[in-house]
Amino acid sequence: MDLRAHIRSIPDFPSAGILFRDITPLLAHPDAFKASVSLLAERFAGQGVTTVAAAEARGFIFAAPLAIALDASFVPIRKPGKLPFDTDAFHYELEYGSDSLEVHRDAFHRGARVLLVDDLLATGGTMGACVELVRPSGAEILACAFVIELTGLRGREALAPIEVFSLVQYA
Amino acid sequence: MDLRAHIRSIPDFPSAGILFRDITPLLAHPDAFKASVSLLAERFAGQGVTTVAAAEARGFIFAAPLAIALDASFVPIRKPGKLPFDTDAFHYELEYGSDSLEVHRDAFHRGARVLLVDDLLATGGTMGACVELVRPSGAEILACAFVIELTGLRGREALAPIEVFSLVQYA
Repeated sequence: MDLRAHIRSIPDFPSAGILFRDITPLLAHPDAFKASVSLLAERFAGQGVTTVAAAEARGFIFAAPLAIALDASFVPIRKPGKLPFDTDAFHYELEYGSDSLEVHRDAFHRGARVLLVDDLLATGGTMGACVELVRPSGAEILACAFVIELTGLRGREALAPIEVFSLVQYA
Repeated sequence: MDLRAHIRSIPDFPSAGILFRDITPLLAHPDAFKASVSLLAERFAGQGVTTVAAAEARGFIFAAPLAIALDASFVPIRKPGKLPFDTDAFHYELEYGSDSLEVHRDAFHRGARVLLVDDLLATGGTMGACVELVRPSGAEILACAFVIELTGLRGREALAPIEVFSLVQYA
């Protein structure tokens, strides 16, 4: 299955000079979507993953079926004000401005083996925030998994020493 | 599997007087999460569903694995400005203020059999907007499926004559 054939490149989105990698054609192709989740599941099967976590919204699309495939919990990481129970927040800087993510305080615990998932790795800013939201719990982060990795933006290096796994790479 | 046992009720969220039904304990319980997706899949198996669509963000959590279970396409319906390709938008009124949802113009087509999914049915405002985003394509809407239905808010009536299916009901 050539996943790359189902990813559409859209110039100048969301702003001039950005080549956006659009996964909606992949999601529209049942075999390609299934294959992407299966390939992630095969890579992490048998490693005792207890918890798959992802930031909203695109991350949920791959992380939720992956949690089911791995018999793991699914933890949603959300924008501020969306989670109803006690939350921890992490505030992080972006190229222009800043953002926050929140997680329920009871989501992670010592002894958990957490796989963090997103559709795309760019600079690693969002995923780095997810990592910081897991840390206080004492849970172990097994790896960060992505469908797409934009290697030129060096997110892999930003997330080191945590393992990064991706299905499709673009320079 | 008693799904209700894994749904947490949180008073006064997001505002005073609202009893929020929190699905994160269900997502945290691998068997309960898997059962909820399996029960939705069993209900719609063999009915020729070609496309499962959901509005961000919680809807994705159930709709994405359901699309995989039904060998169907997954279509994300999103807040404005999130989808990179040509979009259609639908603007709708809420109790306080208004909101918009968008979908890619190539997402639905005549001949498609669409299952719309969300975690929770309240008044049906968000799901009604999803219905309106499918209509111009000429695709057939098979049903709207939910994990939770708040029956007192009469969303089922608001969506009629489209079929509504839900796994757990609260008055």
